[in-house]
Amino acid sequence: MISNKMRSLVQNGSVIRAMFEDGKKMAAQFGAENVYDFSLGNPCTPPPAKVAESAIDILRNEPEMMVHGYMSNAGYEDVRSAIAASLNRRFGTHFTAGNLIMTVGAAGGLNVALKTILEPGDEVLIFAPYFVEYNHYITNFDGVPVVVSPTADFSLNLEAAEALITPRTKALILNSPNNPTGVVYSAAQIGELADLLRRKSREIGHVIYLISDEPYREIVFENVEVPYLPSFYENTLVGYSYSKSLSLPGERIGYLVIPSEVEDFVETVAAASVANRILGFVNAPSLFQRVIGRTADLASDMSVYRENREILCRELSRMGFDFIPPQGAFYMFPKSLEPDDKAFCARAKEYRLLLVPGSAFMGPGYFRLAFCVSRQTVERSLDSFEKLAACYRR
Amino acid sequence: MISNKMRSLVQNGSVIRAMFEDGKKMAAQFGAENVYDFSLGNPCTPPPAKVAESAIDILRNEPEMMVHGYMSNAGYEDVRSAIAASLNRRFGTHFTAGNLIMTVGAAGGLNVALKTILEPGDEVLIFAPYFVEYNHYITNFDGVPVVVSPTADFSLNLEAAEALITPRTKALILNSPNNPTGVVYSAAQIGELADLLRRKSREIGHVIYLISDEPYREIVFENVEVPYLPSFYENTLVGYSYSKSLSLPGERIGYLVIPSEVEDFVETVAAASVANRILGFVNAPSLFQRVIGRTADLASDMSVYRENREILCRELSRMGFDFIPPQGAFYMFPKSLEPDDKAFCARAKEYRLLLVPGSAFMGPGYFRLAFCVSRQTVERSLDSFEKLAACYRR
Repeated sequence: MISNKMRSLVQNGSVIRAMFEDGKKMAAQFGAENVYDFSLGNPCTPPPAKVAESAIDILRNEPEMMVHGYMSNAGYEDVRSAIAASLNRRFGTHFTAGNLIMTVGAAGGLNVALKTILEPGDEVLIFAPYFVEYNHYITNFDGVPVVVSPTADFSLNLEAAEALITPRTKALILNSPNNPTGVVYSAAQIGELADLLRRKSREIGHVIYLISDEPYREIVFENVEVPYLPSFYENTLVGYSYSKSLSLPGERIGYLVIPSEVEDFVETVAAASVANRILGFVNAPSLFQRVIGRTADLASDMSVYRENREILCRELSRMGFDFIPPQGAFYMFPKSLEPDDKAFCARAKEYRLLLVPGSAFMGPGYFRLAFCVSRQTVERSLDSFEKLAACYRR
Repeated sequence: MISNKMRSLVQNGSVIRAMFEDGKKMAAQFGAENVYDFSLGNPCTPPPAKVAESAIDILRNEPEMMVHGYMSNAGYEDVRSAIAASLNRRFGTHFTAGNLIMTVGAAGGLNVALKTILEPGDEVLIFAPYFVEYNHYITNFDGVPVVVSPTADFSLNLEAAEALITPRTKALILNSPNNPTGVVYSAAQIGELADLLRRKSREIGHVIYLISDEPYREIVFENVEVPYLPSFYENTLVGYSYSKSLSLPGERIGYLVIPSEVEDFVETVAAASVANRILGFVNAPSLFQRVIGRTADLASDMSVYRENREILCRELSRMGFDFIPPQGAFYMFPKSLEPDDKAFCARAKEYRLLLVPGSAFMGPGYFRLAFCVSRQTVERSLDSFEKLAACYRR
C-alpha cells in the first residue's frame, strides 16, 4: 500500500547506499581493515578542534532556551551575518544575513530552492555525469530532469545544453568541484554558461536559475580556484553544506544563498523560508547553526585527500587505468576496464574493493572511487587494484 | 518567477509565524516584559541537565568521525534500540531498532510518512481544529486534506469522519494531546476510531493508515493517560518529536515508528528510509541522535505548564472566557469574545496580548493561547486579559 513511486524507488534502491550496507557486512566478515570501501562520500578527516570546543562552550555558556529553541525559519540572524561576512571576505560579495537561509545540509537547501521555483513540468538541466539524487530532488516537485551529455574531458558541454533549453527550462544545476568526476569548471566556461543562460532567458521570456551545489568547494588540489557563481550570473542560488568542509555530514547543516540580484529577490527569500518550514525541515539544527557562527572561516585538514589523490593517481595510472586527475572533491572517475561498469564493479568486489558503477551517476563505462578513506586503506588497497587490473590484461 | 503555489503561500503567510515576527518587533518597542506573547509553541522550560551533559560527554569521548558522520538513513541502530526499549517499557510494545526511523523532528517524520504512502489525489482526513501545517505536508505530495468538522467538546467526530471516507481515503492524521485544543482523546473513542478504520479499510479494499502526531505526549495534566495508538490499530504510523518533551524544538530531532503489524512492513520501512534520504533530510542530526540514545527516558520539568494552566483556567474562567480545560499540550482554545476571531485577536494586540485566531487552525470563533511562557508573563498578562474582556462587557 505504499505509493507506486516509492515502491519502484525501493526496488531500484540507491546503488551507493546499498554499497554502504554491503560494506558493513563485508567488514564484519573479512575484518574492516581488509575491505577497501571507496563507495561513500563520508569525510575521513576530523572536524577542526574548534568545532567540538565551540559546541561545548555554547552548551555551557549560551542560554539553553535560545540554543535549542525555535528561531526564524531562515535561521539565527547572527549566524547568517557571520557566514555572509565570511563569504564577503573570500569572494568580494556584499551579502548580509538577509541573503542567507540556514538549511538541513545542501540536500535540504536544494530541495528548498527547487520547491521555491518549480512548477509541475518545469525542466531542470544537469550536466552528466552527476549525483543522481538531483533527479529525486527535482521530481519531488514534479519537475523534469534533463540530462546534458558529457564531453570527453568532463568540461561543460555548452552546445548540448543550449540545444536542450526549451520554454519549460527553469533551472540548471551545476556541481563544482564535481561529484563524481572531481572536475572544477573553469572561469572561462562559467562565463560562457552565464552568457548562454542570459541569452536564453531573454529568448524564452523568463529567468533560468543557476543552482550551484557546492559542498566540495573547500576541497581543491594544486591551488585550483573554484569560480564563485554569483559573481558570474545574477540569478544564481547557492546550496552549501558543511558536510565536507568541516567533516559534519551527519549533522545536516548548510545554507542557501539568495543574492540580492536574483529576480523578485524579496519574494524569493520569503518563499524559500516558507519552503524550509513546510517541507518539514522547519529550520536547520540549532546547536550546529551556532557552532557554524563561530567556525564559518575554518576547514578540516584536507591533507589526507591530497595524499590519497597523489598515491591513487600515480598507482592507478601505472596500472593502466584511464582517468582525468581530479582538481577537487575527493572522487576519481576512471574508465572501467570493461564496457559494462556494473560487471566491472562486481568483479572489483571479489577483491574486496567497493567501487560505484558510473551508470549510478549517468556515466556508464566509468566507476567512481571516493578516496575519503584513510591513507592506510589506500595503500592496502593497491594490491587489490593491481589484481583487478591484471584480470583484464589476461 | 517563483512558483505560483509558493507565491500564494508567501502572500497568505503563516499567521503564527507572522505573530512570532510581530512579537519580536513589539518586544523591541515596548520591552519584552510588557509583551505577552502566547503565539508560539516554543517550550519555556529548559531541557533536563542530562541533555547538555550527554552532548558534552559525547563530544569529548565518542569517536568524532562516528558522532558527526553519515550513518544508515534510518539513523544509528543503537539509538533506535534505546528508543524501542524505552517505548516497550512504557507501552508494552515489542519494538526493535527495525521499527524506528530517526527523523528531522515530527514535521520531518510526517513528511516521510506521507511521501511513503500517498499517491496524487489520495485523501487524508484531519479532525478540526488542527495544526494547519498538515495541509502543506499533505499537498507536498499532491494529497488532498479532508477536514472533519469538530464536535462541541472537541472529542472525535466519528460520524462526520465516517461520512467523509471515500475510496481515495489513504490516511487519517490524529494529534493527541491536541494542538490547539489541549484535548486528549479517550481510549474508548480511539477504540471506536480503530473499528471504523478497520471496517472502512475492508469496504474500500485498501488500508487506511492512522498517522499519530504526538509531540505533546509527555505534557499531560491531572494524570490523564494518552492512549498509545499502535496498541489500538495495526496500521498506525507514529511521528514523534523531542521538541516539547526535551525542550529541543530547534534541534529537529524525532522519530517515526512503523510497527511490524503495518501492512507490507518490510517494504514500508525501506520506503520510509528512502523517503528520508530523497526529501533532503538524509538522516536526523547525528549528535542529537546520540544524545537521545542517552536521554530517551527523560522529560523536561513540566511544572511551569501545570502552574500556568491552573492560573489561566482559574482567571480566564473568572473573567468569563468559555473554554474546555486542556488535558494536555500547552494550549488553551477559548471562544473569542466576538464571532470574528481575527478581529478579536487584533483587539488583543492593542493590550499587547499575542493570541492566534482559531481560524488559523480551521476553528473560527476561537483563539489559541500557548501557555508555554514564564509564570511571570502569565501573571503580568492577566491585567491585559481583564481589560480585553472588559471591552466586550460594555
